Amino acid sequence: MQYAEPIDRLIKAFTRLPGIGEKTAARLALYILNSKREYVDEFAASLLGVKENVELCSECLAFSEKDPCRICTDSGRDASIVCVVSDYKDMMALEAMGAYKGRYHILHGNMAPLKGIGPGEIRIKELSSRIQAGGIKEVILATGFDSEGDATSMYIARLLKPAGVRLTRIASGVPVGSFVEYMDGATLGRAMDGRKEV
Amino acid sequence: MQYAEPIDRLIKAFTRLPGIGEKTAARLALYILNSKREYVDEFAASLLGVKENVELCSECLAFSEKDPCRICTDSGRDASIVCVVSDYKDMMALEAMGAYKGRYHILHGNMAPLKGIGPGEIRIKELSSRIQAGGIKEVILATGFDSEGDATSMYIARLLKPAGVRLTRIASGVPVGSFVEYMDGATLGRAMDGRKEV
Repeated sequence: MQYAEPIDRLIKAFTRLPGIGEKTAARLALYILNSKREYVDEFAASLLGVKENVELCSECLAFSEKDPCRICTDSGRDASIVCVVSDYKDMMALEAMGAYKGRYHILHGNMAPLKGIGPGEIRIKELSSRIQAGGIKEVILATGFDSEGDATSMYIARLLKPAGVRLTRIASGVPVGSFVEYMDGATLGRAMDGRKEV
Repeated sequence: MQYAEPIDRLIKAFTRLPGIGEKTAARLALYILNSKREYVDEFAASLLGVKENVELCSECLAFSEKDPCRICTDSGRDASIVCVVSDYKDMMALEAMGAYKGRYHILHGNMAPLKGIGPGEIRIKELSSRIQAGGIKEVILATGFDSEGDATSMYIARLLKPAGVRLTRIASGVPVGSFVEYMDGATLGRAMDGRKEV
């Protein structure tokens, strides 16, 4: 006994989402079956909507409704500072913090040689071009502190060094609200190395 | 800083799914943004597809591509036995077991007086009509063993008693693979009451 073909097809579509297994997909598909038509229409339209109405800002490569995006056209922000992040989500997290008033560059991934992702597979070339075009004084490297994020930042730092811009990396250490006793050695090592006069 | 409107709209649509919170919805929406257009088109089409191509079998009320459904038209199955389940998912679980060769009746819910769901809110009337129409010898009550499932089965048993059909309830007890020591008292009580000669 199998689900009816249209249900099976929907289950398959749900299964492709990250973190959604076969059982959850079936549960979601049956929820859709029991849902009002208006919601399902809205869901389908919003799926197509992001593909039709969202593009990449040609400047910073963030997802945006217009090109250039709101941040790149905001005259209240400092165009001479560019914060380099791996992912759009990282940019959103930094924006949620609210204190940063420069611009961004989204790499859309990290270098991962073991997975065959070299510098050419992520948006490093576009970053180089922005630096070459001039007007940028500082590049803040804000990729993650896992091995891939570290390697990506290191590669970019070496690549941009000749351009003569200031290159900085966000700090690594013990997160606010965390206890030293629960921290892993690598984090404590970084926290020690990054210590400051008080 | 907010997500672009089309992204926000998709996040809202994902948030309405059961078990999907705000953060997961954002992650899924960004996954869609990064997905190939073909997948997103297929996802949207499969959502609309279940609404357009799946209906309720007018006999057993299961979701089906055709009416009557495959089970109700299967001459290899015993039309004189009807297994009553709360939900389409319960029917699928019983079908996965493979041993049952009768028909089904899907209630589409359980009675839950505290939530204002009385017998009129679920498909009990349709079950009565099937029994009244004749040809059914046994009704197997296979709703769950929580208080709502129990109450629903009890109500149906009382309602159908005058019709003179055989009324049975699936057994409650210790699940296969489970240890007696970990079972709750209610389950062990049911297991004791349901004991059989060996």
